[in-house]
Amino acid sequence: MGETIVLSHGSGGKMSHDLVAKGIVPFISNELLDRLDDSAVFELTGRLAFTTDSYVISPIFFPGGDIGRLAVCGTVNDLAVVGAVPKYLSLALIIEEGLSLDDLKKVMRSVREAADEAGVFVVTGDTKVVNHGGADKLFVTTSGIGIIPDGVDISGSNARPGDKVILSGTIGDHGITIMSQREGLKFDVPVVSDCAPLNRMVAAMLKASAHIHTMRDPTRGGLATTLNEIARQSNVGIRLVEDTIPVCEAVRAACELLGFDPLYVANEGKLVAIAPAEEADHVLAVMKKDRYGKDAAIIGEVISEHPGKVTMTTRLGSIRIVDMLTGELLPRIC
Amino acid sequence: MGETIVLSHGSGGKMSHDLVAKGIVPFISNELLDRLDDSAVFELTGRLAFTTDSYVISPIFFPGGDIGRLAVCGTVNDLAVVGAVPKYLSLALIIEEGLSLDDLKKVMRSVREAADEAGVFVVTGDTKVVNHGGADKLFVTTSGIGIIPDGVDISGSNARPGDKVILSGTIGDHGITIMSQREGLKFDVPVVSDCAPLNRMVAAMLKASAHIHTMRDPTRGGLATTLNEIARQSNVGIRLVEDTIPVCEAVRAACELLGFDPLYVANEGKLVAIAPAEEADHVLAVMKKDRYGKDAAIIGEVISEHPGKVTMTTRLGSIRIVDMLTGELLPRIC
Repeated sequence: MGETIVLSHGSGGKMSHDLVAKGIVPFISNELLDRLDDSAVFELTGRLAFTTDSYVISPIFFPGGDIGRLAVCGTVNDLAVVGAVPKYLSLALIIEEGLSLDDLKKVMRSVREAADEAGVFVVTGDTKVVNHGGADKLFVTTSGIGIIPDGVDISGSNARPGDKVILSGTIGDHGITIMSQREGLKFDVPVVSDCAPLNRMVAAMLKASAHIHTMRDPTRGGLATTLNEIARQSNVGIRLVEDTIPVCEAVRAACELLGFDPLYVANEGKLVAIAPAEEADHVLAVMKKDRYGKDAAIIGEVISEHPGKVTMTTRLGSIRIVDMLTGELLPRIC
Repeated sequence: MGETIVLSHGSGGKMSHDLVAKGIVPFISNELLDRLDDSAVFELTGRLAFTTDSYVISPIFFPGGDIGRLAVCGTVNDLAVVGAVPKYLSLALIIEEGLSLDDLKKVMRSVREAADEAGVFVVTGDTKVVNHGGADKLFVTTSGIGIIPDGVDISGSNARPGDKVILSGTIGDHGITIMSQREGLKFDVPVVSDCAPLNRMVAAMLKASAHIHTMRDPTRGGLATTLNEIARQSNVGIRLVEDTIPVCEAVRAACELLGFDPLYVANEGKLVAIAPAEEADHVLAVMKKDRYGKDAAIIGEVISEHPGKVTMTTRLGSIRIVDMLTGELLPRIC
């Protein structure tokens, strides 16, 4: 059996240093991180974006990713959807005593791969160890800093009637993947988490259109909850067309079987963009060229009726209200 | 019995919004946070410092503070000791199902008070809820951004032979407080955590001397571990004089009783500064004027002998090696 993490690895003393030096830093090493001062120091100038998220997903490894990839992508995406170019991340680990060092290293390799893909650096971090039963294997908290280019003004408050709603791909992949892992469900076509960094696609979108009003990544609470947030923040209505919303076959089948609505299932590599009608087709075309946007589609529009509400034209032609998620669909999905 | 946090509060849906709107944002409200976009956006220019720490302390309330004050002070201090003026914080909460809403609010009030005292703003955050037994009450992760004024160059690598080592006050107060709470120990004079934001004292120190080489806050692992880190990073020896290191009477008594060495016990409101000999008295005088530096003292000097090692002239006049902490003294001390 391999080495496991024990409480002494969190003491701040010799064993902490050894763990950081052997199990963490080598995997994510870069000039800024390697200095190991209390704070990372770098030059940045301009309008900055700053975000944070804790990840408590169970299980920590899943098809399409793990908690390390998830944490990096989640923070990169939170920066990207306000129009920022992600630059620097922090990484704070809360480890349950008993986690295998091999699992930790595997997660750190994923952190590095995702950071490399997104073009960001982990420049500062922290490691705590709690007693067995005091946490569940591994929690990861990432924060991120990015720079917003001049002229970019993206906010949940900027959606305007007449704008088109563009979705970057199929919904529900992440949530159904985690659910099926947890419950031991098997499908004919395996489902895989969509966990991915979207910042390169966003950069291309912003280059293509200076007038994208709103972007957001529909994670916990799914597409429905995200669109409700935007409708409220912008005080507009949003009308979706059910038939246009991409859902992959396996997710659709799983949702039917389990009684879930994919509109409420979490995504980790998708974004919704709201742009003026006259620029929507161009933005869509740019998204479709990106590996993470090939299934992108216009799924609805912003309207002045029913401000603060999301409605949907169903396959049967009726119109229904799409509310925020109430209650809990899947705990610890991210 | 009051309201408690349940899993649905972490769903990302309606209940998450309600929790954030009622239990979190009102307590730490400010213009940037209240926008509730995926990232906070602000202008900053210059040399920035960026840091992160997770707090897993048990118990979450203790004499002298709680996990909220601890998290804000810890991050503020990590920025201050690289010479930065702390500006913006992020706050990520991992809550165990069953935590009382009142306890959460109490922690958020402490976050606000500590942030106000330090002059920083919590501008972005995240809330996750895990199942009962999946975490222990509440974990808090704070990250922070600060600006380093021109001309300031503070690093663990900058200590030079001949420099004096200045400590801002008594050691071991935080660790012994947590220990006594956990074990139900009572002392004649109660011990209180020193948990405090040191950034205002640091600003005064930097104004008094442009040549402070190194600062660090001796938290986990205590003063001994921190000085060992500096000795290694700067490749110098550090010689302490035992008699000059301030330890309050209750901590000294507790350490004797429990067999602890205060040099290894955690602090949360202390810093060690290393400055050229000719400026040390002036820096010391400035520190003594601050409410968090009134017991400050020069406790030793940087030497060229024994590079990478810390040694101490004991009360008996002998010289002993002061190594890093090995093993675990007190788990979950911060």
